[in-house]
Amino acid sequence: MVRWQPGTRERLQGTALLLFTERGYDETTVAEIAAAADVTERTFFRHFADKREVLFAGQEDFLGTFTEPVAAAEPGTPPFVLVRRALESAAAFFPDDRRTWSRTRQRVIDAVPALGERELGKLANLKVHLGAALREHGVAEPAATIAAETAVTVFHLSFAQWIADGEDRDFAAVAHERLDALTEVVHPGR
Amino acid sequence: MVRWQPGTRERLQGTALLLFTERGYDETTVAEIAAAADVTERTFFRHFADKREVLFAGQEDFLGTFTEPVAAAEPGTPPFVLVRRALESAAAFFPDDRRTWSRTRQRVIDAVPALGERELGKLANLKVHLGAALREHGVAEPAATIAAETAVTVFHLSFAQWIADGEDRDFAAVAHERLDALTEVVHPGR
Repeated sequence: MVRWQPGTRERLQGTALLLFTERGYDETTVAEIAAAADVTERTFFRHFADKREVLFAGQEDFLGTFTEPVAAAEPGTPPFVLVRRALESAAAFFPDDRRTWSRTRQRVIDAVPALGERELGKLANLKVHLGAALREHGVAEPAATIAAETAVTVFHLSFAQWIADGEDRDFAAVAHERLDALTEVVHPGR
Repeated sequence: MVRWQPGTRERLQGTALLLFTERGYDETTVAEIAAAADVTERTFFRHFADKREVLFAGQEDFLGTFTEPVAAAEPGTPPFVLVRRALESAAAFFPDDRRTWSRTRQRVIDAVPALGERELGKLANLKVHLGAALREHGVAEPAATIAAETAVTVFHLSFAQWIADGEDRDFAAVAHERLDALTEVVHPGR
């Protein structure tokens, strides 16, 4: 029987990020990550499909963070209210104590084109899932796709600002600033 | 002296697209494109840096289509009016007699991941240039980036619809539908 080690997954992620930063992503092997985290390679692969997934684990939780408030909303809730709730839910997914991890992770991703493409794929996947959640909630096309793409754009820009050097406001404050800017930009009849 | 052949560039593009569709992009060589268009390889390379660029030529004209109306607008023109003008200008860049070419080109791109990445890079480049044009016009941050990203999202979704099977409305009509949907999402009932 395999003994379940609480926190093993998180320890592997923290150790991997440290090694990626110190030695470079391409130069770090799964064997080295496992050894540094004091587990076997087999344990590593019980938690992550491959080295890359250490940085991209939790995709389903991430998607659910956006889509669950949409699914849970009262019928007839206006699309922009759904977008706002999805972003507020995402803000809760990125508490301040996660900022350093997110910032360091982004530096690793920005240095390796294949990781950047994986990140873009994650955002594209989010657009698809959020669009589907909005349509299921009764939002018609093209509004559902426009709303989903806009929400992911606001998320992406908010995330970039949240991890920017010197930024210390919480994710919700940064996201609201961008939602307000969007509201101000899109003035009907002007 | 090299005799200038009017239309050589367009003939090379048309010939290349035909060969890419018939034989596949990877399977088609520059030598075959040049031969089929009845020019030398040297002539091909006078027009295009490589095979891929046959599909992506005119990037500067494409960017200018969006940024020129922004640069030419009266000072103080609201950002969303600038976005609308940029999209109307882009609509003129995609007249109906270009739709079949654009549709076929997209099928070639969708079949080859490296071409899809080049296309995403083109859109990312457009966001950067349009954001810069808006800032130069006096639009503050984060509104300038939000407006640029939103404009490119609307462009991208409009383009996808414009080349969709069965779509016969012109680009401007499709783009306005999406701009109106965005306005309705952000400012419902107004």
